[in-house]
Amino acid sequence: MIIDLTNGTVEDRLRIGLIGYGYWGPNLARVLDHLRSDGVDLVAIAERDATQRMRASEMFPTGDVVTDGTDLIHDEGIDAVVIATPVGSHFDLAATALEAGKHVFVEKPLAATVAEAEDLVSLARRKDRVLMVGHVFEYTEAVSYIKRVIESGELGDILYIRSLRVNLGIYQTDINVLWDLAPHDLSIINYLLGTEPTSVSAVGQAHVTEGVPDIVNLNLNFGEQTLATVVVSWLDPRKIREMTIIGSKKMLVYDDVSSTEKVRVFDKGVDGPGHYESFGDFHYAYRYGDIVSPMLEHREPLGEECRHFIDCIRLRKEPRSGGRSGLRVVRALAAAQASLERHGARITLDDPLTREVSGRVDRLLIGRGAE
Amino acid sequence: MIIDLTNGTVEDRLRIGLIGYGYWGPNLARVLDHLRSDGVDLVAIAERDATQRMRASEMFPTGDVVTDGTDLIHDEGIDAVVIATPVGSHFDLAATALEAGKHVFVEKPLAATVAEAEDLVSLARRKDRVLMVGHVFEYTEAVSYIKRVIESGELGDILYIRSLRVNLGIYQTDINVLWDLAPHDLSIINYLLGTEPTSVSAVGQAHVTEGVPDIVNLNLNFGEQTLATVVVSWLDPRKIREMTIIGSKKMLVYDDVSSTEKVRVFDKGVDGPGHYESFGDFHYAYRYGDIVSPMLEHREPLGEECRHFIDCIRLRKEPRSGGRSGLRVVRALAAAQASLERHGARITLDDPLTREVSGRVDRLLIGRGAE
Amino acid sequence: MIIDLTNGTVEDRLRIGLIGYGYWGPNLARVLDHLRSDGVDLVAIAERDATQRMRASEMFPTGDVVTDGTDLIHDEGIDAVVIATPVGSHFDLAATALEAGKHVFVEKPLAATVAEAEDLVSLARRKDRVLMVGHVFEYTEAVSYIKRVIESGELGDILYIRSLRVNLGIYQTDINVLWDLAPHDLSIINYLLGTEPTSVSAVGQAHVTEGVPDIVNLNLNFGEQTLATVVVSWLDPRKIREMTIIGSKKMLVYDDVSSTEKVRVFDKGVDGPGHYESFGDFHYAYRYGDIVSPMLEHREPLGEECRHFIDCIRLRKEPRSGGRSGLRVVRALAAAQASLERHGARITLDDPLTREVSGRVDRLLIGRGAE
Amino acid sequence: MIIDLTNGTVEDRLRIGLIGYGYWGPNLARVLDHLRSDGVDLVAIAERDATQRMRASEMFPTGDVVTDGTDLIHDEGIDAVVIATPVGSHFDLAATALEAGKHVFVEKPLAATVAEAEDLVSLARRKDRVLMVGHVFEYTEAVSYIKRVIESGELGDILYIRSLRVNLGIYQTDINVLWDLAPHDLSIINYLLGTEPTSVSAVGQAHVTEGVPDIVNLNLNFGEQTLATVVVSWLDPRKIREMTIIGSKKMLVYDDVSSTEKVRVFDKGVDGPGHYESFGDFHYAYRYGDIVSPMLEHREPLGEECRHFIDCIRLRKEPRSGGRSGLRVVRALAAAQASLERHGARITLDDPLTREVSGRVDRLLIGRGAE
Repeated sequence: MIIDLTNGTVEDRLRIGLIGYGYWGPNLARVLDHLRSDGVDLVAIAERDATQRMRASEMFPTGDVVTDGTDLIHDEGIDAVVIATPVGSHFDLAATALEAGKHVFVEKPLAATVAEAEDLVSLARRKDRVLMVGHVFEYTEAVSYIKRVIESGELGDILYIRSLRVNLGIYQTDINVLWDLAPHDLSIINYLLGTEPTSVSAVGQAHVTEGVPDIVNLNLNFGEQTLATVVVSWLDPRKIREMTIIGSKKMLVYDDVSSTEKVRVFDKGVDGPGHYESFGDFHYAYRYGDIVSPMLEHREPLGEECRHFIDCIRLRKEPRSGGRSGLRVVRALAAAQASLERHGARITLDDPLTREVSGRVDRLLIGRGAE
Repeated sequence: MIIDLTNGTVEDRLRIGLIGYGYWGPNLARVLDHLRSDGVDLVAIAERDATQRMRASEMFPTGDVVTDGTDLIHDEGIDAVVIATPVGSHFDLAATALEAGKHVFVEKPLAATVAEAEDLVSLARRKDRVLMVGHVFEYTEAVSYIKRVIESGELGDILYIRSLRVNLGIYQTDINVLWDLAPHDLSIINYLLGTEPTSVSAVGQAHVTEGVPDIVNLNLNFGEQTLATVVVSWLDPRKIREMTIIGSKKMLVYDDVSSTEKVRVFDKGVDGPGHYESFGDFHYAYRYGDIVSPMLEHREPLGEECRHFIDCIRLRKEPRSGGRSGLRVVRALAAAQASLERHGARITLDDPLTREVSGRVDRLLIGRGAE
Repeated sequence: MIIDLTNGTVEDRLRIGLIGYGYWGPNLARVLDHLRSDGVDLVAIAERDATQRMRASEMFPTGDVVTDGTDLIHDEGIDAVVIATPVGSHFDLAATALEAGKHVFVEKPLAATVAEAEDLVSLARRKDRVLMVGHVFEYTEAVSYIKRVIESGELGDILYIRSLRVNLGIYQTDINVLWDLAPHDLSIINYLLGTEPTSVSAVGQAHVTEGVPDIVNLNLNFGEQTLATVVVSWLDPRKIREMTIIGSKKMLVYDDVSSTEKVRVFDKGVDGPGHYESFGDFHYAYRYGDIVSPMLEHREPLGEECRHFIDCIRLRKEPRSGGRSGLRVVRALAAAQASLERHGARITLDDPLTREVSGRVDRLLIGRGAE
Repeated sequence: MIIDLTNGTVEDRLRIGLIGYGYWGPNLARVLDHLRSDGVDLVAIAERDATQRMRASEMFPTGDVVTDGTDLIHDEGIDAVVIATPVGSHFDLAATALEAGKHVFVEKPLAATVAEAEDLVSLARRKDRVLMVGHVFEYTEAVSYIKRVIESGELGDILYIRSLRVNLGIYQTDINVLWDLAPHDLSIINYLLGTEPTSVSAVGQAHVTEGVPDIVNLNLNFGEQTLATVVVSWLDPRKIREMTIIGSKKMLVYDDVSSTEKVRVFDKGVDGPGHYESFGDFHYAYRYGDIVSPMLEHREPLGEECRHFIDCIRLRKEPRSGGRSGLRVVRALAAAQASLERHGARITLDDPLTREVSGRVDRLLIGRGAE
């Protein structure tokens, strides 16, 4: 239980329950467990799989380990719920938890449809609870640094962003590669630009599982000014996480795989033609300059993210990656999904088609092959 | 003049005229000049710009240097014409030369419209002359090696190709980045797959010159089986020429910028799910394996290309990158241009729209901003 | 207690005590703790520093945490002792533990002088206990792979090895950079070549702490055939761990910092001149060939190492990096130290001077500046 | 002929003769030929090998091509002689040319012995002619940039330099790898530090040709303050030219093989312990900071070098890499050679032993195997 700080009373410890101890859950458990000195207790873990439950018991002998997430949600001793289950179950679990008055952290993407995401946002508002999405890259030092560089104006206007997020596997069975990997790019790009795309288009192909695209090429239009292209793939010989940001003054490359130089700022650019009488009569001034790799402090982004969730609960703040941010990402994913199913046709984010698609793979599988 | 080899007579020397001594022409001149011992004489150069004409005279004191390409074309002492002018003039020069009975080599792209390219192909056939396009990458050792690897079956079926061809500048004033850089990717991919795309889509944006896209994201569909994505840009901090080829058995990365390891073959792959009762019930077998960088002999591709042109003239062969190959590339460019102008709508290669667009930038500039 | 397997009796659990919970001890503790299912119990930790003792208690609430390593050594419930203290205390602790009948694992280097190392080896033999040194790289998949490649003859005769092991910090206060970093290179190279150097020479310089070299350039002569050069430094802008191995048939580069391609085999070489009449009359045949990066399975070397210690105790085997291997490394370090103090003079490994030096920095500091 | 500029008279064209058209000579010929607009004429080439003479005639149809360098030296129409022959002939040719009143440019190293180099320096002084050595790296933009950075104090005191210059082949038959490759490192390091080593030591080994070391590990002591280590090898799978410079304030890496980032400045360092009571009682402050890759303009160093030679002739300046600079490099090579032959013993540069060795391989081969 949390005591309002404005009353000057001391605060209780914050008690967290974790639902889902599969691929990502153990990481969240470990990080939450390390927040003990911050007044946080991971008191219970819910997991359907028996083997994983046994592992959870071994790692967290002091916490309850249960099968059903709903039991955990209705535990009155729990203040906040962290959900790390397949996306198909996000809505039910998060909605139930919010209804039960819990603060909720959901792994990305927030939900499988726009309607679900909207409902969660309004439910959180109505119940006055914190709703946060696990857009973990927004909590990295690299992305924070790039955000500051952009806001300082050093790069000038952002003209173009190209992102490449590919590797071999790990195939998801419940979502396609768009819903699996692109939430990272969408959350980073939306965060950096401080807005969301106006329209998107996407082309992809399914090679391993019929109907489940494992390679997607995505275009994001931010008005007429800025274009972003994102390629996500589960079928690539190398692990690449690389974002190139073209500003009107400088350019920046963010290589998340590099251990020592994640961000490099290129003092390169081009000055437009200016006034000229006849075509062919001018020269562009290319500016080539120094390259700077700034020293970035190492922080564990997952730790930053979890601490931010706790802070938002305590201070009743809207999280950096709050429900609305999660909704924006789901809206772009839905538009991209609609485009995928229409051979790459451009879809605006307010197109009704975005309300007809879902990130759940079982729906995708029924009756049509994704393009 | 060429004497039919089947008659057993000796062959004359082959006399070449070069039209265009701007950006690329000097390279062709240098290479042609080195073919002297192969019985080739570069006898004349035509160039409109006085300064460049002076440079040509200095470098090739023994050849004629004239202003007008047409004069050169009508020179009876010349057997073959090499055209390295802006794309807008390719058709007129090449058609005139073919009509005059010359063999013709044209820099890429072959022409600015599908109709022009088709006319050149049929004209060459009618006049029984060699028509070749400067798809120079088809003459590199790296692409030849990759072609052999694909044909050997070592990669399995080709599922996906991703190409990135970006750098800062050099802006062209007569064409956009699609017509400038993508001919390389299209010619390489068509050559490797032995076919042409069935449909394409493209999204781009113009930042430096209004109406002239300097960044384009292109999708190429080869039937339902194979997808290729190509990003070309004049606005990037790094020079990148990288193609990733995903086969069903192995994967390959072709990095043309690397001096020592242009090709790397990854023994990585994935085996599909096979038969299974219930969804979620299976495991994919990811295969991780060795990486091999084959030793490639160094050959100058431009020299290979010019020698191939000469061989085709002498042996009356259809060149590897003959007129039909050039037409295929122009058709894909035209479809991509039509898609660019329609927000990335998918355009099939036989769509009548492909006959309404041109690679000439002046047409593009009139009345519409490219998307 | 261990029951002889040959008697067919079941074996007891093996009880381990760890002395030293400073920089490296926590890693050993974590790994030993994970060996529980292998029948190993980490039952006690000794550490002089109060803060570190507190941390040890937090991480291992079920084990005893004491101040004095000697108490732990004399604990009759303990079968084996793992020593991760500064090198100056290795001998006293290890000797006491062997005398007490414990099996002993000591972090590298085994001891600070040749005499100490020799005494430990003979003590272990006399007491019939396992004595093992923490030459951790011998337990990496990369070094194991290289060992197999060399033994297969694929590289031919080993002509030359060059190793570079540099980074910024972490400065040790009790030893110089030679005794800190070079044990890794010496243990790897001795292991790969299956022998030890016949003579060494070393040049270095102290920049941060007077008399404590932080950069050392070391030559190792293995007979007249094979030379190895090793540069170790605490004063470098990049972290580099790179070993180049030149064989008469092939060459190999081992880059321990690379996450994906630690080993690369170059099919490059040179064929000697053979017979020729006059000097200048011959051509060497340089062989350039493919490069192969073998796929290496990921294993935690520290886990492999600890498991090997356990296996050796149970099976009464001499460890791969047993006392004799540790003695060889200390002997080479002592010869290099003697050379360092003599401006790089070549010192054979049986030179009496090797018995007059010590790896302890306090001795080094007294009365002379290391060269 | 050159007219003294102080007399205000116009200057004649400068007429150059080139001796040696083997491996390096053609590069010098090409560059000298391009200096025509600077008033320089390459009027004659001497080369003993008939095939190479034929090539020279083809490339320079307007110049004389002769067999014997002496003929060229005694040609009164020639003002300056450029010598690109094997090192064994440097002295005779250069001395004869200086005696004949020619200005002389000699490829590195200046001569095969200290005595020869000294004689050339004093001869040039006596005859008042320009004597310059082809230390080409001193004319690169990268080395010039590093020189400016060091002189600005940005790096602080230079503590250590490590250089690696290795590749597979090209084996020289007249000199060992020390005399072939290390002149580059010595000239660069001497130039950067503005001084020469006080003592050196070197260890090497011969694998391909008996008695001709193909791998050498060299230490250069610049007083007690600065150490440099240099590894040169003809037996390495990769071409590496990398110099790491450790300053007391910043560190720098110079990678000559990189096409885009030859120099990188690391804002990294370490602050010493300062005052402290007891040993072990202090912490070093490691400073980690940004990395900057400065933009370097591209210049052809060989062109810069030849132009500098011309300028020095015209302005009667001592060249940057003049005879004295060449002598310093030969002196260090001789000391290193003496050390090589004495198992790496430290040799001071004024040691009489430096006068007993030669870079000529035939002397090396007689009677002893290099170490």
